[in-house]
Amino acid sequence: MKARVYVTLKNGVLDPQGKAIEHALSALDFQGVEQVRQGKLIELDLSESDPEQARSHVAAMCEKLLANTVIENYTIELAD
Amino acid sequence: MKARVYVTLKNGVLDPQGKAIEHALSALDFQGVEQVRQGKLIELDLSESDPEQARSHVAAMCEKLLANTVIENYTIELAD
Repeated sequence: MKARVYVTLKNGVLDPQGKAIEHALSALDFQGVEQVRQGKLIELDLSESDPEQARSHVAAMCEKLLANTVIENYTIELAD
Repeated sequence: MKARVYVTLKNGVLDPQGKAIEHALSALDFQGVEQVRQGKLIELDLSESDPEQARSHVAAMCEKLLANTVIENYTIELAD
């Protein structure tokens, strides 16, 4: 089973990488970009085949390692 | 209009960050993780309201800055 984890910064948390991209885009003359936020996309191949088990397993990985839950949110998507 | 860009490494390209996560997960006793790949998730707030215009605008940003198209793929998702 495949799992996709999207890790994004919580609202209000400063995003220096996003700001850097914003400045680079305007330096390259791209207009109309109001805000940029950068996060992580983590793709996992799991031997687990039960979706419920896989989801709770990945959630535990997020809580322990993949996301810093003080400043980040995470969402989990499963695919066969 | 909001755009989400998913930047992932092309197949066959070595992913040291993914490997590091794999090792860390197994060190934390998470079983059944066959492979981990890490990519970028970039969220853009655009003043553009026409989806076609927004998509081609973001594609140009990807080609020029957001993705290294030699080793990375990108996909674009639009949302109102």
